[in-house]
Amino acid sequence: MRLLNRSSSEFLYQQVIDFIEKQQESGILRPGDKLPSLRKLSSQLEISVPTVKQAYVELERQGSICARPQSGYYLQAQQARKLMPMRAKWACCDPVEIECRSLIEQVHEAIHLPDTVALGISNPVNSHPPDKALARLMRAVISKVAEKAVSYGPINGDPKLRMQLGFRYQDLGADVNHEDIVITNGAQEALAIALQCVAEKGDVIAIESPCFFGMIELIESLGMKALEVYTCTEQGICPDELARVIKQHPVKACLFSTAINNPLGSFMPDERRQAIVTLLEQQDIPLIEDDVYSELYFGEQRPKPAQLYSEKGLVITCSSFSKTAAPGYRIGWLVPGKFAERAKRIKRAQSCSTPMLQQWTLNEYLMSGEYDRHLTVLRKKLSYNCERMRALIAAHFPNDICISKPQGGSVLWVRCRSYVNTEDFFRQAIARGVSFAPGSIFSPSGKYHNYMRISYGVQWCERIEQAITVLGELIHDSAK
Amino acid sequence: MRLLNRSSSEFLYQQVIDFIEKQQESGILRPGDKLPSLRKLSSQLEISVPTVKQAYVELERQGSICARPQSGYYLQAQQARKLMPMRAKWACCDPVEIECRSLIEQVHEAIHLPDTVALGISNPVNSHPPDKALARLMRAVISKVAEKAVSYGPINGDPKLRMQLGFRYQDLGADVNHEDIVITNGAQEALAIALQCVAEKGDVIAIESPCFFGMIELIESLGMKALEVYTCTEQGICPDELARVIKQHPVKACLFSTAINNPLGSFMPDERRQAIVTLLEQQDIPLIEDDVYSELYFGEQRPKPAQLYSEKGLVITCSSFSKTAAPGYRIGWLVPGKFAERAKRIKRAQSCSTPMLQQWTLNEYLMSGEYDRHLTVLRKKLSYNCERMRALIAAHFPNDICISKPQGGSVLWVRCRSYVNTEDFFRQAIARGVSFAPGSIFSPSGKYHNYMRISYGVQWCERIEQAITVLGELIHDSAK
Repeated sequence: MRLLNRSSSEFLYQQVIDFIEKQQESGILRPGDKLPSLRKLSSQLEISVPTVKQAYVELERQGSICARPQSGYYLQAQQARKLMPMRAKWACCDPVEIECRSLIEQVHEAIHLPDTVALGISNPVNSHPPDKALARLMRAVISKVAEKAVSYGPINGDPKLRMQLGFRYQDLGADVNHEDIVITNGAQEALAIALQCVAEKGDVIAIESPCFFGMIELIESLGMKALEVYTCTEQGICPDELARVIKQHPVKACLFSTAINNPLGSFMPDERRQAIVTLLEQQDIPLIEDDVYSELYFGEQRPKPAQLYSEKGLVITCSSFSKTAAPGYRIGWLVPGKFAERAKRIKRAQSCSTPMLQQWTLNEYLMSGEYDRHLTVLRKKLSYNCERMRALIAAHFPNDICISKPQGGSVLWVRCRSYVNTEDFFRQAIARGVSFAPGSIFSPSGKYHNYMRISYGVQWCERIEQAITVLGELIHDSAK
Repeated sequence: MRLLNRSSSEFLYQQVIDFIEKQQESGILRPGDKLPSLRKLSSQLEISVPTVKQAYVELERQGSICARPQSGYYLQAQQARKLMPMRAKWACCDPVEIECRSLIEQVHEAIHLPDTVALGISNPVNSHPPDKALARLMRAVISKVAEKAVSYGPINGDPKLRMQLGFRYQDLGADVNHEDIVITNGAQEALAIALQCVAEKGDVIAIESPCFFGMIELIESLGMKALEVYTCTEQGICPDELARVIKQHPVKACLFSTAINNPLGSFMPDERRQAIVTLLEQQDIPLIEDDVYSELYFGEQRPKPAQLYSEKGLVITCSSFSKTAAPGYRIGWLVPGKFAERAKRIKRAQSCSTPMLQQWTLNEYLMSGEYDRHLTVLRKKLSYNCERMRALIAAHFPNDICISKPQGGSVLWVRCRSYVNTEDFFRQAIARGVSFAPGSIFSPSGKYHNYMRISYGVQWCERIEQAITVLGELIHDSAK
């Protein structure tokens, strides 16, 4: 009997990890014990030595085993660990046609359910909403120009707001001015336009894996194919891996969160982002960057947009105010590079202009400096919430889970044992007043069934702890 | 030498009309003269007898010739005439792939030019803007819920506004309730979603000819092909003609203004609309109806939506408040029939939700009854403006033009002599402070180069008369 299941969508090395953890649970392996040698385990499980090595390296990085030189690997005491999935099985991944799943709809609907702790949607501003400041500015705007709001605005958006956005890019060193920006109905429309600028039905779009489910749905709705590229928990897409992928597959364009990945919370260093832009432009492959989280970094420095490194104009930057200030305003934008003409035409053809009132209000918000002051506080709150949520999960979830350690954004990525399917208890969770995002919706090929995404973009209150307790119980029951 | 040009996009029968009018101008034919017999002219011009007949019938309908039984056709005194183009050349029309033209962009940009009388864009509410009432309601809404406007709204829109819209459909006898409606960023997004529900790249979409250029651009942006269907100046698409077209071509879906056509201002009787729905549903061809002008009828009765006649759920209704109340609010909607699931998924994937503030304001506007009172006044103003603009054009344009007689909406369709190209003096008009919409942008195959669309959705003032005088001079110069 084979101990591992090669047809599972779970990586082989993760199955090795689970195998070791099961032995540990059943008492066969105890803290301090020496693990089987690489060669021995590889022959026992009928897999390659490098795969076992990968599992051991991963377990070592998680702190659950340690290597002693010239001796081997030893088991350490178990604890809730930092999540660092490694690459595996990726070489055999093919582009997939996507079918939309009603699960995504349920995750969305759960935002508006009454009496539900909504941990399923990434909504950073929830933790520090600028609603009062924006309401005050909007009232002031309306008292002056409410009548004007009734008329059509320019297709590419309010010139003043575009000017403000241009200044921000210029501050980062990017050569972007207001003429290069098109205002859209949120980043989602910006991404839709960007994809239609560079690809058509049937084309292969490279995406991160895991990847925000909204992007997967978008690619599906346009009839394109998604190709998952291995994405590292700490630094996002790796240039070497990307080079391999574009060599093997007819990638028409890449759609990446080049700053901070959702759901991983990984943070790509500027040099890596530059390397990716250089690599892609050498091959004339456009890069669409989803930049919505880049203002929500926890470290010292805001990541620089990939746009900054573009020499051929093949980078299209998409962003919005939805993660930083006002999701309900539906104001995003697009810096389309050399695709400017086409982007404007698609915007005009598919939704005409964007409401002006929200643009005027956000322009005031930026001009007054309040937006930047708000961002400073929002980042602190999120970083604090992040650690608090990690501690809560470590306290209430089973010991054998792994938790990501985000470097920005508003979500945690949690890995349960491979035999747990987080979809199974999604409805139960809703019934008990908690929503989360099941892992499988973050992959078009159905990976990550044993993962879940939990948002810490919340107002902290007692109900959060209750909600995490409920989720912990459900995972526990599901693992039985 | 051939007297007519068969390769011109101008209909042959219209070239016959121009030929006769030229003879009249040069004094060869005078009022009271007998015209050449059908047979004689057909042999002189090397065209078929029915084509000459078509020209004579058209001239007769326009009142410029009259038929005397057993004798023939006689020339009457010339005057600015009512426009009634007849079918011709349509049998040889094939679906065309569309290329977007920068002219449309220029027409759009002209709305925001300072010191320009904007007759190029159909903006009915200009003639009676409800800006003060809406501003008052919006202020009231904001004083209560401005903070809430910062958060995500439901994907398919505000339930209360959908309820109000549902009531309006129910009043017309259509079985539509709030669950069947998806709020969108204007009708343009509704149409984009509808097309993506029923067709994909390369598919043939039947459209009216002439057709609103926004639809042509939309079809182009989605990579679909447009098939122009002859549309009559008085009653819109004819069911017999449509039956012939869907027999000859692989029509995937139809996209029609089933109530009031833009630019013709034609008004389809309810029975004809019903016949079209029945015909299409028999063949399982979806009908997307652009219903934005149906509240702007000049007659007694609001036209009934095609949705009302649908038995198989193949009719998708798209509409908005942009032509009736607030174009800048960008609030439209979709009644997707049996495509409900797909429509919601596309909306979620491509632009997420629609701003709530404008929806709440419009809901108050509908609930209070102010919207209907506003519509009553708006219709009267438009109908009055329409006649006034027709008179102005008749007074200042050359004698040989034809003018449509709209039965709703806010635009006039003007035909100049066939050797006039209205594109030629578009830039000159802008330079002299007037914009209009050149005819060629209303046809994907470049018909209507000698037509122009002029909006009477304006605030009446002295500058309007000056603007029409300028246009008259430009046509005159162009005809030399």
